[in-house]
Amino acid sequence: MERPRKIVVIGGVAGGMSAATRLRRLDEKANIVVLERSGFVSYANCGLPYHLSETIEKRSLLILQNPVSLGERFNLDVRVRHEVVSIDRDAKTVTIYDRVWKVTYVEKYDFLVLSPGAAATMPQGPDSKWILAMRTVEDMDKAIAWLYPNPSSAIVLGGGFIGLEVAENLLKRGMSVTLINRGPQILKHLDPEMAVALTQRVRNSGVDLRVGRTVESFTRNSVTLDNGDVIEADVIFSAMGVQPEINLAVEAGLKIGANGGIWVDDHQRTSDPSIFAVGDAAEKIDAISGDERLATLAGLANRHGHSVANAIAGATTIPATPALGTSILSFDGMVAANVGWSEKSLRTAGRKMRIIHTHPSDHAAYYPGAQTMRLKLLVDPETDLILGAQGVGGNGVDKRIDVIATAMFAGVTASNLAQLELAYDPQHGSAKDPINMLGYVNRNIAEELTSVVEWHELETLRNDGALVVDVRTEGEHKYGHIPDSLNFPLDSLREHINELRGKNVIVYCQVGQRGHTSARLLAQEGIHVANLNGGYLTYKAGLASKEMK
Amino acid sequence: MERPRKIVVIGGVAGGMSAATRLRRLDEKANIVVLERSGFVSYANCGLPYHLSETIEKRSLLILQNPVSLGERFNLDVRVRHEVVSIDRDAKTVTIYDRVWKVTYVEKYDFLVLSPGAAATMPQGPDSKWILAMRTVEDMDKAIAWLYPNPSSAIVLGGGFIGLEVAENLLKRGMSVTLINRGPQILKHLDPEMAVALTQRVRNSGVDLRVGRTVESFTRNSVTLDNGDVIEADVIFSAMGVQPEINLAVEAGLKIGANGGIWVDDHQRTSDPSIFAVGDAAEKIDAISGDERLATLAGLANRHGHSVANAIAGATTIPATPALGTSILSFDGMVAANVGWSEKSLRTAGRKMRIIHTHPSDHAAYYPGAQTMRLKLLVDPETDLILGAQGVGGNGVDKRIDVIATAMFAGVTASNLAQLELAYDPQHGSAKDPINMLGYVNRNIAEELTSVVEWHELETLRNDGALVVDVRTEGEHKYGHIPDSLNFPLDSLREHINELRGKNVIVYCQVGQRGHTSARLLAQEGIHVANLNGGYLTYKAGLASKEMK
Repeated sequence: MERPRKIVVIGGVAGGMSAATRLRRLDEKANIVVLERSGFVSYANCGLPYHLSETIEKRSLLILQNPVSLGERFNLDVRVRHEVVSIDRDAKTVTIYDRVWKVTYVEKYDFLVLSPGAAATMPQGPDSKWILAMRTVEDMDKAIAWLYPNPSSAIVLGGGFIGLEVAENLLKRGMSVTLINRGPQILKHLDPEMAVALTQRVRNSGVDLRVGRTVESFTRNSVTLDNGDVIEADVIFSAMGVQPEINLAVEAGLKIGANGGIWVDDHQRTSDPSIFAVGDAAEKIDAISGDERLATLAGLANRHGHSVANAIAGATTIPATPALGTSILSFDGMVAANVGWSEKSLRTAGRKMRIIHTHPSDHAAYYPGAQTMRLKLLVDPETDLILGAQGVGGNGVDKRIDVIATAMFAGVTASNLAQLELAYDPQHGSAKDPINMLGYVNRNIAEELTSVVEWHELETLRNDGALVVDVRTEGEHKYGHIPDSLNFPLDSLREHINELRGKNVIVYCQVGQRGHTSARLLAQEGIHVANLNGGYLTYKAGLASKEMK
Repeated sequence: MERPRKIVVIGGVAGGMSAATRLRRLDEKANIVVLERSGFVSYANCGLPYHLSETIEKRSLLILQNPVSLGERFNLDVRVRHEVVSIDRDAKTVTIYDRVWKVTYVEKYDFLVLSPGAAATMPQGPDSKWILAMRTVEDMDKAIAWLYPNPSSAIVLGGGFIGLEVAENLLKRGMSVTLINRGPQILKHLDPEMAVALTQRVRNSGVDLRVGRTVESFTRNSVTLDNGDVIEADVIFSAMGVQPEINLAVEAGLKIGANGGIWVDDHQRTSDPSIFAVGDAAEKIDAISGDERLATLAGLANRHGHSVANAIAGATTIPATPALGTSILSFDGMVAANVGWSEKSLRTAGRKMRIIHTHPSDHAAYYPGAQTMRLKLLVDPETDLILGAQGVGGNGVDKRIDVIATAMFAGVTASNLAQLELAYDPQHGSAKDPINMLGYVNRNIAEELTSVVEWHELETLRNDGALVVDVRTEGEHKYGHIPDSLNFPLDSLREHINELRGKNVIVYCQVGQRGHTSARLLAQEGIHVANLNGGYLTYKAGLASKEMK
């Protein structure tokens, strides 16, 4: 009888555990050992911040499995608090340090799966030990312990996903929160005019947000910023990002990728054919550029873990799909989601793009509870393929980004978004869904029915003599408008055509739709006209993002 | 100077008005006349039922435009209460009856657009005039008038979309409602085990639902059913479906399609090149069969109207995309959505299919407020292309159906649903989204890692000697199980292998997932095993659907 194969998995969360359980379903006889440095496996890391406020009331809800239950169900040999200290690729062994009994021992493997994750970047200094993090159950337990008896104030370092989620949950506890963000903008993967609504929401919720500030020094209870400000607080959380855990891989001589993650092929195999890597520690391929990238996303970790199990078991394997980097964040009821690249990342890369800004309702405006969202679509002008999208709002943002992510996966062109047949009733959408509208607007721009200009181009164009015309009603105009713009409401625009002849005219309305109708009307009269992309709302958001401090 | 072209549009809602407004944006000089038989154009027909309960409080919200506003903004010549009584294709004229001044006159056209919609099927009898409908603003106004002073009871004929929406809103007014459905199941486009949850919700909400009943006769205030039951009520609504309005087209000798709608090519052109047709009156092409079909969907009407404008203006036109028939209904907080074909329609057509049943949460189960939904996916076993999907539940059903509709449009295979990179945070999804899970389950079945059997096959298979094993916990088993099933919980299943050797075993759990793990375990031990598709929940729903009366 053939000796059962032995598979050692390093890391028992997300990718590692997906690999182990899938492998058991494919190979009942394999010897599967899972080694986890922390005390917990299969926990819900994305849920940890929500236990701080008891939004997720029970800690036990976050710990989905344990070594006993995994042993019973999947016949896995799961060892927590067991840390792999080295890999011997020639001997096909790992050396393991048992952190409970403080002994070191060796295990052989036929295949090794690396799923060590990423380590939180922590501020360095003599008082580092006082800084809390939010990566593991131990991190959370420590934070919860320190939050009793109730402290009243906290500093959070970092305005990314985890920083904002921690800040939100500390606020819910009734604490005062100062959030310090190194760059000029929180959620730096978004474009400024999209992020600004979330910045405002963070401030309105009571967070003292400081952007464009670095930490010069810190103590247990205070932080000194680069501008000399000293902020005091009972506790300090760090959420300054993560770095792939690659020490083991480096010491074992495995190839490291362009971004400091473990290099893998499209079946998650490292430079050693007996070793696979998945999750935050492994490099991915970017769907837009085709280059290597990092992406710390649970969905990718799980999918790649599944794929590794197939490869080891000899089942059909599907090459890894390049990563779109789809993500979403909720803060105090506001949702910000994105997929693919942003305008600023495309500009940095020197890529040409077509931009669409819309401000649709999540469902029919006449049905109660409709919420306005902001959508932005970025399109390759040569292929009409979608390069990225961002959505900020409330209900229905997640749906639109998921539909666009699906379209991007499938290579549906931006114009063909108009052809999608989406479910419509007044509670869930519109007869022309926001997704369809993006397709229509894209086609109008692509076929040069309409010229558009961006909010950040307006000043230059005005300096070159362009006339700016507000085509909204007099009431809307009075309530707020672009300085020095004329007001010729669309419904009487035909009366003003002669006043506009011979001019370069930029029209704008509230969101861009009446602007488009106006632009079509004037263009057919021979007037050089462009529509302000996204209208007054996008203009105002862009302006606000420039004024953010 | 060239004479401006004259375009006459018959019907001023959805498709007709989309054509007219788009055409103006493409051709500022065209002479565009819109003739509408009713008193209203551009109204929100899908919102009408919700004014009955004042869920949509203001009637004015439902009437989005009027002839004056459309004249000002789009320079359209909109004539309400003007009915076209005949078309002279040789002379290129329409004869119009002005219902206000009771005069008849003739208009010439260069292009004619037919968007007459569909007429409600009304019960015929001496008291027909007392039956209310819900197609037009006039229908709604009449109903609202009849509902003051408050009557206490209503009969609704028809358990489709409109019937259920009317019933829901009458309930919200505090009325008692009897709903009479001709077939054995409301929402007949769904499969029985999917519709049953909605049937239960309708009954639990207080509606006296009679299925499988036809109306033998009726008076102003009563209905006599085929079983002799006499039901009395203050008002009677009919929502028994619609028929395409084709009288004008028939009399003009235009080609009529296979389903009684106006035949059109893939640019909405009728058999007369100067005449286009859109909306409920026009035939569509079905995306699954490629055959002609009807589909009374606002989204298609709008899209086809847009396309007609492009064709008339000589702009780039995109051939009409075949219809998926994506639809959604909300009733008392429960949502039922579908796209493509059902299991029963595929069986009727003799098509082979792979079936997947799942019962996922709309978002991470550990985050508060998670709601379970039922999903069903139908897949072509030869091409792995998706043939249809149904979802019943609360939050997030619309999103999953929209993602699947997008995948179907793009030809994404069912297995590739696992590769989609969807937005995940605990409030909006799972690290393995329900969509991804459908893909994984499909692949497991497609690659014959798992055999599945359907709830409606169970009885026959048991009669042939199959053993049924519940792999849930003892507690779950006690709470309810399939009669005469053994209970070997998954976590101790390995101890029972010898008892199962040589048998044909059907395993089941609550939703199918533990069943899959069990089936894999047993199959690798050489046991003939199949997993009950969708588990106990789908079995129970299937059983309930058979017992519905």
